[in-house]
Amino acid sequence: MQKFEHPLNERTRIYLRIESLFHKLNHSADLTQPYEYQVFFSSLFNMLDILDQVQVKAELSKDLEKLRLQYRTLIDSDDENKSQLLPKLEQINQAHKNLMQTTRPGHTLRENRFLSALKQRFFIPGGDCCFDLPALHHWLHLPLDVRRKNTYQWISQLLPLSDALSLWLELIRETAHFEPKTACNGVISSEAESANLLRLEIPIEQQVYPIIAGNSRRFTLRFISFETNKNCEKDIEFTLAIC
Amino acid sequence: MQKFEHPLNERTRIYLRIESLFHKLNHSADLTQPYEYQVFFSSLFNMLDILDQVQVKAELSKDLEKLRLQYRTLIDSDDENKSQLLPKLEQINQAHKNLMQTTRPGHTLRENRFLSALKQRFFIPGGDCCFDLPALHHWLHLPLDVRRKNTYQWISQLLPLSDALSLWLELIRETAHFEPKTACNGVISSEAESANLLRLEIPIEQQVYPIIAGNSRRFTLRFISFETNKNCEKDIEFTLAIC
Repeated sequence: MQKFEHPLNERTRIYLRIESLFHKLNHSADLTQPYEYQVFFSSLFNMLDILDQVQVKAELSKDLEKLRLQYRTLIDSDDENKSQLLPKLEQINQAHKNLMQTTRPGHTLRENRFLSALKQRFFIPGGDCCFDLPALHHWLHLPLDVRRKNTYQWISQLLPLSDALSLWLELIRETAHFEPKTACNGVISSEAESANLLRLEIPIEQQVYPIIAGNSRRFTLRFISFETNKNCEKDIEFTLAIC
Repeated sequence: MQKFEHPLNERTRIYLRIESLFHKLNHSADLTQPYEYQVFFSSLFNMLDILDQVQVKAELSKDLEKLRLQYRTLIDSDDENKSQLLPKLEQINQAHKNLMQTTRPGHTLRENRFLSALKQRFFIPGGDCCFDLPALHHWLHLPLDVRRKNTYQWISQLLPLSDALSLWLELIRETAHFEPKTACNGVISSEAESANLLRLEIPIEQQVYPIIAGNSRRFTLRFISFETNKNCEKDIEFTLAIC
């Protein structure tokens, strides 16, 4: 089963990108494979670029605040599920508090002499040869435990952001269940009900992938045949959650 | 022991970059780790960018031709080592022939619909999320043997170039032995004897890396302390081969 997610607004798009970068950072920080350092540094530098361009902390803090109000209202009106909802409210409070206590995310990483020198040349095509980046080459010769201490320490500075973001996405993903749908002739349109995110599960045997256009009001989903790269014109059964 | 290499001309610089990208491609083509696809595709696309900008095939063919003449002259004048030199000459002839039989390296990869669509968006910061590259996301769900067949087939189109390049670098690296040197106060200058490449071996305990400026006539090598990022002012013992 292929799982796809599609953001319905720019904010969620950025959050999903950052989440994906965090997955890569966490996976590669152990540096067990010879070229994992490349996944690690390219994810870290991509992350710093995004954090430079977007006020993620401010946006996310507003979103958590909104979620907190929703949970408060829910708890007041839904005595039955109160015991399930209260711990989530507590999680939101904690994540929000930790996020607000951080300075600008990525700030100390940007000040790091080794990282900032590396970032300048890292994306030159083929530019991580030893003569392009002798300091990186030296670092790669350091004992594994020293390098891991570095990678863990660098990641740790982004943890409050990562935790808050994961929580927000988790709670948003929980807001809807998957429902069976049919895209007649490979196309389906629908109201988006002010949602943030579409989630799809598509059987791999269908050999299609989705192209989605839309916003939080309305979206159109078109399936493309992987084989021909053209619109798929058969009916496609899949499941959809509008979160 | 840290090994460093530094090119003394632009051609060798490009060759070393391409060699490093080939190492990454060969290592990651098996796709055994979850994010190895990122190392694979970024190396492949970096390679195509370099091949777009530089006439590597023509340059390398000239370099192999030059090497062939040198080996011919050597064989004629050195009866003693003839039996060792003849197989190398044969290797050069074969690599040159295979290289000349290829069309422009990377040409068919550039025409590949899947790869060219991927390349356009692959380097957006965080841009390999499923919604940015749904076709890649579908491809990542295909069975491992199908994906490996793809990666091997894509690499195979660059093999004549890779083989010729490896051979040239191997023979150039063989042209000199490592000799002990001392960089007084962390600096050493020397004639480069029309060489292509410097090779260094530096004990890791010295905690320094080299910055080298120079060309095929003359070079200056300055050791930098990894800790302070400043010129190292103690004497550094290392070994050097001027190839």
